[in-house]
Amino acid sequence: MASKPITTLDASLIPRLPSSSPTLFEAKKKKNLTFEAIAKKLGREEVAVAALFYGQAQASPEDIKNLSDILGIPSDKLETQLMGIPDRGRTMDMPPKEPLIYRLYEIVQNYGYAYKAVLNEKFGDGIMSAISFSTKVEKETDDKGDWAVITLRGKWLPYSRF
Amino acid sequence: MASKPITTLDASLIPRLPSSSPTLFEAKKKKNLTFEAIAKKLGREEVAVAALFYGQAQASPEDIKNLSDILGIPSDKLETQLMGIPDRGRTMDMPPKEPLIYRLYEIVQNYGYAYKAVLNEKFGDGIMSAISFSTKVEKETDDKGDWAVITLRGKWLPYSRF
Amino acid sequence: MASKPITTLDASLIPRLPSSSPTLFEAKKKKNLTFEAIAKKLGREEVAVAALFYGQAQASPEDIKNLSDILGIPSDKLETQLMGIPDRGRTMDMPPKEPLIYRLYEIVQNYGYAYKAVLNEKFGDGIMSAISFSTKVEKETDDKGDWAVITLRGKWLPYSRF
Amino acid sequence: MASKPITTLDASLIPRLPSSSPTLFEAKKKKNLTFEAIAKKLGREEVAVAALFYGQAQASPEDIKNLSDILGIPSDKLETQLMGIPDRGRTMDMPPKEPLIYRLYEIVQNYGYAYKAVLNEKFGDGIMSAISFSTKVEKETDDKGDWAVITLRGKWLPYSRF
Amino acid sequence: MASKPITTLDASLIPRLPSSSPTLFEAKKKKNLTFEAIAKKLGREEVAVAALFYGQAQASPEDIKNLSDILGIPSDKLETQLMGIPDRGRTMDMPPKEPLIYRLYEIVQNYGYAYKAVLNEKFGDGIMSAISFSTKVEKETDDKGDWAVITLRGKWLPYSRF
Amino acid sequence: MASKPITTLDASLIPRLPSSSPTLFEAKKKKNLTFEAIAKKLGREEVAVAALFYGQAQASPEDIKNLSDILGIPSDKLETQLMGIPDRGRTMDMPPKEPLIYRLYEIVQNYGYAYKAVLNEKFGDGIMSAISFSTKVEKETDDKGDWAVITLRGKWLPYSRF
Amino acid sequence: MASKPITTLDASLIPRLPSSSPTLFEAKKKKNLTFEAIAKKLGREEVAVAALFYGQAQASPEDIKNLSDILGIPSDKLETQLMGIPDRGRTMDMPPKEPLIYRLYEIVQNYGYAYKAVLNEKFGDGIMSAISFSTKVEKETDDKGDWAVITLRGKWLPYSRF
Amino acid sequence: MASKPITTLDASLIPRLPSSSPTLFEAKKKKNLTFEAIAKKLGREEVAVAALFYGQAQASPEDIKNLSDILGIPSDKLETQLMGIPDRGRTMDMPPKEPLIYRLYEIVQNYGYAYKAVLNEKFGDGIMSAISFSTKVEKETDDKGDWAVITLRGKWLPYSRF
Amino acid sequence: MASKPITTLDASLIPRLPSSSPTLFEAKKKKNLTFEAIAKKLGREEVAVAALFYGQAQASPEDIKNLSDILGIPSDKLETQLMGIPDRGRTMDMPPKEPLIYRLYEIVQNYGYAYKAVLNEKFGDGIMSAISFSTKVEKETDDKGDWAVITLRGKWLPYSRF
Amino acid sequence: MASKPITTLDASLIPRLPSSSPTLFEAKKKKNLTFEAIAKKLGREEVAVAALFYGQAQASPEDIKNLSDILGIPSDKLETQLMGIPDRGRTMDMPPKEPLIYRLYEIVQNYGYAYKAVLNEKFGDGIMSAISFSTKVEKETDDKGDWAVITLRGKWLPYSRF
Repeated sequence: MASKPITTLDASLIPRLPSSSPTLFEAKKKKNLTFEAIAKKLGREEVAVAALFYGQAQASPEDIKNLSDILGIPSDKLETQLMGIPDRGRTMDMPPKEPLIYRLYEIVQNYGYAYKAVLNEKFGDGIMSAISFSTKVEKETDDKGDWAVITLRGKWLPYSRF
Repeated sequence: MASKPITTLDASLIPRLPSSSPTLFEAKKKKNLTFEAIAKKLGREEVAVAALFYGQAQASPEDIKNLSDILGIPSDKLETQLMGIPDRGRTMDMPPKEPLIYRLYEIVQNYGYAYKAVLNEKFGDGIMSAISFSTKVEKETDDKGDWAVITLRGKWLPYSRF
Repeated sequence: MASKPITTLDASLIPRLPSSSPTLFEAKKKKNLTFEAIAKKLGREEVAVAALFYGQAQASPEDIKNLSDILGIPSDKLETQLMGIPDRGRTMDMPPKEPLIYRLYEIVQNYGYAYKAVLNEKFGDGIMSAISFSTKVEKETDDKGDWAVITLRGKWLPYSRF
Repeated sequence: MASKPITTLDASLIPRLPSSSPTLFEAKKKKNLTFEAIAKKLGREEVAVAALFYGQAQASPEDIKNLSDILGIPSDKLETQLMGIPDRGRTMDMPPKEPLIYRLYEIVQNYGYAYKAVLNEKFGDGIMSAISFSTKVEKETDDKGDWAVITLRGKWLPYSRF
Repeated sequence: MASKPITTLDASLIPRLPSSSPTLFEAKKKKNLTFEAIAKKLGREEVAVAALFYGQAQASPEDIKNLSDILGIPSDKLETQLMGIPDRGRTMDMPPKEPLIYRLYEIVQNYGYAYKAVLNEKFGDGIMSAISFSTKVEKETDDKGDWAVITLRGKWLPYSRF
Repeated sequence: MASKPITTLDASLIPRLPSSSPTLFEAKKKKNLTFEAIAKKLGREEVAVAALFYGQAQASPEDIKNLSDILGIPSDKLETQLMGIPDRGRTMDMPPKEPLIYRLYEIVQNYGYAYKAVLNEKFGDGIMSAISFSTKVEKETDDKGDWAVITLRGKWLPYSRF
Repeated sequence: MASKPITTLDASLIPRLPSSSPTLFEAKKKKNLTFEAIAKKLGREEVAVAALFYGQAQASPEDIKNLSDILGIPSDKLETQLMGIPDRGRTMDMPPKEPLIYRLYEIVQNYGYAYKAVLNEKFGDGIMSAISFSTKVEKETDDKGDWAVITLRGKWLPYSRF
Repeated sequence: MASKPITTLDASLIPRLPSSSPTLFEAKKKKNLTFEAIAKKLGREEVAVAALFYGQAQASPEDIKNLSDILGIPSDKLETQLMGIPDRGRTMDMPPKEPLIYRLYEIVQNYGYAYKAVLNEKFGDGIMSAISFSTKVEKETDDKGDWAVITLRGKWLPYSRF
Repeated sequence: MASKPITTLDASLIPRLPSSSPTLFEAKKKKNLTFEAIAKKLGREEVAVAALFYGQAQASPEDIKNLSDILGIPSDKLETQLMGIPDRGRTMDMPPKEPLIYRLYEIVQNYGYAYKAVLNEKFGDGIMSAISFSTKVEKETDDKGDWAVITLRGKWLPYSRF
Repeated sequence: MASKPITTLDASLIPRLPSSSPTLFEAKKKKNLTFEAIAKKLGREEVAVAALFYGQAQASPEDIKNLSDILGIPSDKLETQLMGIPDRGRTMDMPPKEPLIYRLYEIVQNYGYAYKAVLNEKFGDGIMSAISFSTKVEKETDDKGDWAVITLRGKWLPYSRF
């Protein structure tokens, strides 16, 4: 397919999403905008913008203003729908049935203890935060084909001694 | 704690692991070697080495020879225990109860659809392979503290048209 | 029953399917077309066409044009409903309750390790891809009755060494 | 790895298997025999032989005699361990955690309704038997790489009218 | 209660049933017909007729014609709603919560291995088909009270040797 | 296989069974006795005897005496192991993975509501008891092959009015 | 709160209940009647009446007449909604999340084997019926406060010998 | 069976029980004592004594002394095994598979909301305690047969207002 | 974000909540009131007020009057929607997917036995009541940042001896 | 019971715990020490010490030295058993079956969204850390009886903007 696909919203997902999600996805489709394009205008990572569309990340007042401009949605409508604090994690049942998302789950299942062992040796007892956290997706191409590169970067939090 | 901790094997995990796991972890402890040190000698990533210790990655004949040298384990014993093809994924019940591993699971749960949306826009319909795949863990430090950076790199596989 | 049955859509499945599914199944029923007939016109396998009807496979622009012609659905309606990238796997709860589908599940349950053992001996450590993958269904008849033959053909992906 | 790998038995699987399994796998390893080699001598499919090793298929008296010869196991020992009727399906928890086996499960999850639709149109109301059933694995190679081909062949059973 | 009760459809079950189910149950209620009465006119077993009402068995063209006559439903409406091939098994979550149905489930749970042992000794390795299958319900009365007798009759399918 | 198979006990089931089970199955194997033969001598149904062997039915003092004679087990040993009241239902996880037992489960899943509807119309509001209950297995043969016939006979218990 | 509370129906429960439930609860609320008051007029236990309101117990024709009088609901409407045989047990997911109901579940979880042991010693091998069964709730008050007393009375059913 | 059965311990339950359980059950068997007999000597309810045997209730120092006398177990052994505070609820998986215990579970499943409604009307918002709680089992006999009567008596705890 | 966020109600939660929840949240939003502000006027803890908004705590007649005044909701509407006794615990599936709530769940998972051990040593055998219970949330700030402090205070209930 | 109970280790928990747990609990019992006493000597909270005993918290080198002194365990044995980094969370299945621990789980289930709402209003979008976290248990007594007070104190972590 020559042109880049624009992600749309599967109707059967809507009951699990906040009311902002169909608003945002429909406008995005009408404007034919990729997350990449929107992310650039918002100054945020593509994954963060997509997460915001699925109700998994918070929009700042500035994000709301920018999204209103870019997507042509009245800003008060967007404000009403986006001003809440996200109720995260309800989009998906686990284990994920979607093959793409399952592959990420499988990585956790297979390498979970290996990550823990290496992280503990590097940092001691603690966790990598999923809150003080950022992530991005990049595309690389070499002679073997295309490669997706996902980077997860989280603050190391040592367990408190008490 | 001044010295770096050496990962050991929790006894209650052993019934879920191949017989090579206790052999390797005990020798590693006795030699007081980190995965970093072993990985350097094997020319592999730390996570790959830890995965090998947990029976989640395959050892090449050269790995076996090197591990035998580094860890002081008779090579025939190691060969017998490591020559099988891994039976992956049985170390852990999902959702993971270990807080460190749960954070990775939570990232999949919260950002799963966002990753899918961004990857589909960048690559079309397909998945990021978890098999033609590599991963690494890095430590960064800035004035806010330490940061763990996990990189996942997988071949992009488009769905076949049939 | 003399005439071949035409698959229709069970109403209770619809909330799990994209909006294209009822559109396609209704038109198919009205035109009294089998998947075999549609597949021939699209130049694709019957299973792929059925998967497309259930929202489990992607339609190319040419597929959309052809489907519009064959089924008498306005092409812009079809385009709108089919242009997204599939959100796969949500049609069904596992274990499958449908006896026909359960039999396939049972084959995986009973022969899973046997397949793994034979594939590993033939190919080494890796997996058979379900993405670089095609499948077809054939009917054979002999003096004992009718036989269904399902062929699964997937690219062999060896685990990366890293 | 130059030489073909010989499947061995993961120790953590043993409590889920009949007593014949470790006996057979150990002898196979000692003799360095592939399932292909054993299958040829038994006149059976490789998958059937592997299934027999995992306690998922029955051995005939002739199989027992042949296995005793090929593997060098006293025939009375083999007879005692193999004469029971298999208690199938307990080797594995579902969903499968092993990535190779999961791919087969995913095929059922994604294409289950498509198979049902196509089979119903070809055969009417019924199921493909998993009992009057055979399966085989083949390797194909082309310029894109290696391909695994799994064939499932089952008797079509129409629902009785009563 | 003097008069025989006529089974009606619990409203909360409807979302799990095909559209034919409420049509059939309402007409049955209006005509005040038992399954026994309908079964006699259709020349089928009562359980088969009830299964047909719940979307778990297929109607032949003749059944549709007869049901139309008996229940006073326009035959084209019935044809449209009943011509599909059943999508079986989705009416109920397992374990069943309904006490009557749970008792049947409990019989499988308690006597499952006993049935297997006896059937294997009588027939060898195989299964009793649930497809080439019929069942009926009878009432017996003796001085201790009423007894329900359920008969299950299925074709014996030996495992194929392959 | 010419001779009738004698059911033996899968070793991996033993931890779920009372201590009497291996005692009984081993003696049965040594004496080469079918459940049919034992049942005749005990004056009980085969399924009841098999259930007793799996710890799912109680032995009377007379059963114990008879079993001791038939199987050549010292009666005091048998008494000690069999005198308890069964702790039923723990042999099997549900849904059953064994294909033969799954077929029975599938019958409950598919026909559960049909049985309820027919039984309610025949008997009113109540259940078929699984306690005041007997069951038997018979073999029929016609020109289409062998048929297994399972009869379930339970006391009808109407709900108390209170 | 001085006045006795009147139980009303939580809207989120309605999709799990028969259509009679909202009818009954609304009328009860309007008339400001407790279950105690209704039970007296029906000559039944309060728990039985509440169960009837939740669709878990059957109404006799006389109950319907009385309920129509007491609650001011047209008797034909009530007859239509209440004449079916209950489809029991679907009101609630287990384990119960409601703290009051969970306490009853916890009693079964903690004392289940103790009840079995004591009942078996008193009655032999069998069960206490939940069908030939009645139950009541009483309030006692002493100087330590109020006490709820729930009595369960079920027919003892010995296992049939067969 | 003429004599009263003495409850013994199913071997497959032992891994879920504290070490005191086999000690107590063996001694009880050897002395041929019912829970009724032991309860009388301890001045406690039978269910409480059985719960104590299954590790679900605490023994007082006086209980330990009395049990030592009655059962002929050295008091220091009993003290060591019984002095801990019970780790309750781990004896059983839910839903219970044992038919007797399942009937109690079914009562909660079917009548849970009815109990809640009646208790709330009698007492207001709160719960019946399962801790400030006692229970007993009684046997009644009338011309219809034997009846088991279980009484649950718990302190009513109103929700705190805060 | 400079101004304090006002919690709003995620639309996808509404089907799990009583009808009072959307009424209350909408009015709260329109009045731009925090739970802190409402709690002060009601003389209750913020958590209790939020629980009341989610249908997890009961409102007294005085609460209803006050809420009507503060939120500008007609008191008879509020009375109708709030006069029932809460059907608690159905808002959320466990394990919680929301990261904030999961952290509380994780604390129970990790420290559950530690709490039990310490509480048992301080109080003997019993539980901390979740009914005779209050809880509050406080904010503390020091040079390391902000800290959330949750206090749980429950009556100690010793197990009754019976 | 006059004397304070000393927590001991239920044998059935041991397979889920690290090897240090039985060592520590046995020594604690022999020395008749409460967690309070040990905590004072270690300068840590009682809950932290109990968590350490259950393998849910890490011991510092100084803790190990102190524990060795207090409990009379050779320090090298303790070092070997305690030097690993905890593999947390595997002690318990969720939902917890232990009534005391279940009450904590119920608090999360009932008040989870209320905590989230209040915390979000006080702190914005984020979580209370369970890692930068401390907790303690206190006993209060008033004229109504004893009260357990559990305090949870966690760092507030705002979601990163990326």
